[in-house]
Amino acid sequence: MADPSVLVQSLTPAAIDAAYVLIQPYVHRTPLLTCQTLNTIASAPQSPETLAGTPSEGQTPANPTFRFFFKCENYQRIGAFKARGAFHALLRLIAERGKEEVQKRGVITHSSGNHAQALALAASTLGVPAYIIMPSISTPSKIAGTQSHGAEVIFSGSTSVEREAVVAEVQAKTGAILVPPYDDFNIICGQGTSALELEAQYQALLKEEPQLSLHPEGNALDAVITPIGGGGLNAGVATFFSDKTTKVFGAEPSLEGGDDCRRGLDAGERVPAVSTLTIADGLRTPVGLLNWEVISDRNKVAGVYAVTEEQIKAAMRLVLERMKVMIEPSAVVGLAVCLYNEEFRRLVEKEASQGWDVGIVFSGGNTTVEAIGKLFS
Amino acid sequence: MADPSVLVQSLTPAAIDAAYVLIQPYVHRTPLLTCQTLNTIASAPQSPETLAGTPSEGQTPANPTFRFFFKCENYQRIGAFKARGAFHALLRLIAERGKEEVQKRGVITHSSGNHAQALALAASTLGVPAYIIMPSISTPSKIAGTQSHGAEVIFSGSTSVEREAVVAEVQAKTGAILVPPYDDFNIICGQGTSALELEAQYQALLKEEPQLSLHPEGNALDAVITPIGGGGLNAGVATFFSDKTTKVFGAEPSLEGGDDCRRGLDAGERVPAVSTLTIADGLRTPVGLLNWEVISDRNKVAGVYAVTEEQIKAAMRLVLERMKVMIEPSAVVGLAVCLYNEEFRRLVEKEASQGWDVGIVFSGGNTTVEAIGKLFS
Repeated sequence: MADPSVLVQSLTPAAIDAAYVLIQPYVHRTPLLTCQTLNTIASAPQSPETLAGTPSEGQTPANPTFRFFFKCENYQRIGAFKARGAFHALLRLIAERGKEEVQKRGVITHSSGNHAQALALAASTLGVPAYIIMPSISTPSKIAGTQSHGAEVIFSGSTSVEREAVVAEVQAKTGAILVPPYDDFNIICGQGTSALELEAQYQALLKEEPQLSLHPEGNALDAVITPIGGGGLNAGVATFFSDKTTKVFGAEPSLEGGDDCRRGLDAGERVPAVSTLTIADGLRTPVGLLNWEVISDRNKVAGVYAVTEEQIKAAMRLVLERMKVMIEPSAVVGLAVCLYNEEFRRLVEKEASQGWDVGIVFSGGNTTVEAIGKLFS
Repeated sequence: MADPSVLVQSLTPAAIDAAYVLIQPYVHRTPLLTCQTLNTIASAPQSPETLAGTPSEGQTPANPTFRFFFKCENYQRIGAFKARGAFHALLRLIAERGKEEVQKRGVITHSSGNHAQALALAASTLGVPAYIIMPSISTPSKIAGTQSHGAEVIFSGSTSVEREAVVAEVQAKTGAILVPPYDDFNIICGQGTSALELEAQYQALLKEEPQLSLHPEGNALDAVITPIGGGGLNAGVATFFSDKTTKVFGAEPSLEGGDDCRRGLDAGERVPAVSTLTIADGLRTPVGLLNWEVISDRNKVAGVYAVTEEQIKAAMRLVLERMKVMIEPSAVVGLAVCLYNEEFRRLVEKEASQGWDVGIVFSGGNTTVEAIGKLFS
C-alpha cells in the first residue's frame, strides 16, 4: 500500500461519487427505514438504576431527542455492505489492468466473514476466478455460502502467519491479485457509497413526510453513526460527509478491548492488534492504517463510542422484536450507542435542544436462528 | 350475529373499498417485498428424500415456478394485520351509534393475542375505553403490551366458559360493546383491505420493474395465499378478489388437527372445535361461522392446504436468515405451502407452464428472541 498519510488526500467526496457510478448496476439501493417505537425509546432518559455501576452512576440521566433513519445494508446483496467495496475494488482492477489480465489472474483474499462472500459474488458476476483463504475451523455454513457464489475456498490454519503463507502460495501459483477486506482505498470508496444513498434517501423521504424529521423546515442529517471493525465503512461514510455539516461517529464493542479505535483516539496512536471474542464478530479486527488516517481526523469523525455486550444484545432485541428487522450483532452497535451510551446521549442533549436526526447504518444481517437462540438463551 | 348465510351476501369488494376509506388514516400501508433467493428455492423441485414418508413418496417431485410478492403485515401497527379489522370495527361502531355512546360504554374483547393489542390501540386512538379479558396465565409481555396501549386488562380463567363469564360481568357493569376477533362482518372487511393494497402495490411495482413478474406483458396476480386461524384475514382477502381472476388459497398447520378448515372442506362441514399446540399459535382457533361461509365457497377460495411443524420452521428460517425479515410462525404457513406442500406445487406446475405470480400475506411479526431460540434449539 502507498503511504496512508499521502493516500488519504485522495479520499474525497468526489471519489465516492465516482465509485457509485461504477457499482450502481451491481448493488442494491437498500431501503432507508424509520421506526417510531425506537425514536420514542431513545428519546426517554434511561432509568437511574440502569446507570448503577457505570461511570454515570449518580448523575441525572441524559435526556436527548432522536429521530432515526436506518440505512438497511442487511438488505444489501450477500446481506452486508461489503458487496459495495468488493464490486468497486474489482471493477477498478478491471478498469486499470484490463478485463483479460484480471480474468486470467483472478483475485484472492483471506476472510471468514462477509468480505469473502462479497468478493466471491463480485468475481463470479464479472467472470473472474476468486480464491478465498479461510481457516479450516470456519463454520460449514460460511464455507458453503462462499462456495455457493462460485469461489474456490482454500483452507489454512487460523493464525495470521499461517493464513498469509497460504495466500502467498496461491498467489505464486496463480498470480491472483489481493483484494484486502478493509484497509484499501477502493474498498473505502465503495463502502462510502452507502452514505451517498443514505443522504439522498433522507432528503427524498422528508419531501414526502417532513414530520419524520426534527427539522421539518428542511435540513441535513445532524449525524450518522456506523460500526467500526476494520474501519472501511466508517472511513468511507466520513469521507462522503467530509464537506457537509453532518457529523460522523463510530461505534465499537468494549469487550476485551474491542474498542481499539476509541482507545487509539484517547492515546493519540492507532492500536495495531486486538483480541476480543465480542458477539459483534464482524468488529473483532483492529482498525486499518488508511482507515485510521480518516477516522483520527477530528474534522472527519467527531468521535467513537463503545457499548457493552449486554447493550448490544438489548439493542438487537429491540430491532428484532419491535422493528421486525433481522440484523447481526455487529450491525446494531451504532443504535446501541444512541440508546445506552450516556456520554454520547449527553452530547446530543447538550448540542441541540431540538434533538438530532441521526442516520444509523445497519451494516449486515448475516446470522442464524441458532446464533440468536444462543445469544438469548 | 345475523344469519351468516345471509350476512355473507353483503361481503363484496365494494365493502372492502368502503372499509379502506375509513381506516386509511389509521393504518400503515405496509411494504410489498420480493426476494430472489426465495423465488429460486421455491422454483426448484424438492429432493426425493424430502418426500420419503409423505403421501408423495416415490413420485417425481413437482417442478413449479414461483414469483413471490410478500405483503408484510408484520410491519403493520401493533405488528400484525389485526390493526385493520380493529380500527374498522370501532370506526363503524362510532359511525353507527355515535361517538358519545361508544366513548361512554367502551369496547370489550377476550383475546391473549394480536387482536387484544389491536383493539387496545384503536380504542386509545379514538378515545374509547377498552376492556380486554385475558387468561391470568397469559405471558407477562402480552399483558404489558396490551396495557401499554392504554387498555384495562381484566383476568379470567383460561376456559371459554370462565372467559365469557368475565366478559358478561364487565359488560353488565359498563355496557361495553363486544368486538369479536374474527367472526364478524366489519372485522372481515377490515382485514380484506390488506388485499386491496397488495393488488395495487403489485401493479405499481410491475410498472417500475416488469421483470419481477412471470408475466412481464402485464397481468393480475395468479394467486394469493394467507394463513387461516379464525379465518378473518382469508375471508377478507377472498372477498376482495371475488370479482377478479386472482385465485385465493388458505394455509394451516396440520399438527393435532390444526387444519380444521381443510378438514371441514373435505367433510363438507365446518369443524367447530380444535385443540392443537402448533407453533403457529395464532392459528389454533377453529374457523368462524361467517368466515366459513366465505372460505367454503369454491368461487371465492380455491383451496386450503396444510403444512407440518417442521415445514413451518424451515420456511421461518429462510425468511429470517435469507430475507432478513422478522415474522411469527403463524405468518409463514402460506410460504411453507408454496415451498413444501407437494399437492399445491403439483397444482401450480399443472395450471401454468409459465408459473405463478403469488401474493403471500405475512400476517404478523410478534414473537420474541427467546421464542426463536426455543424453536431452533
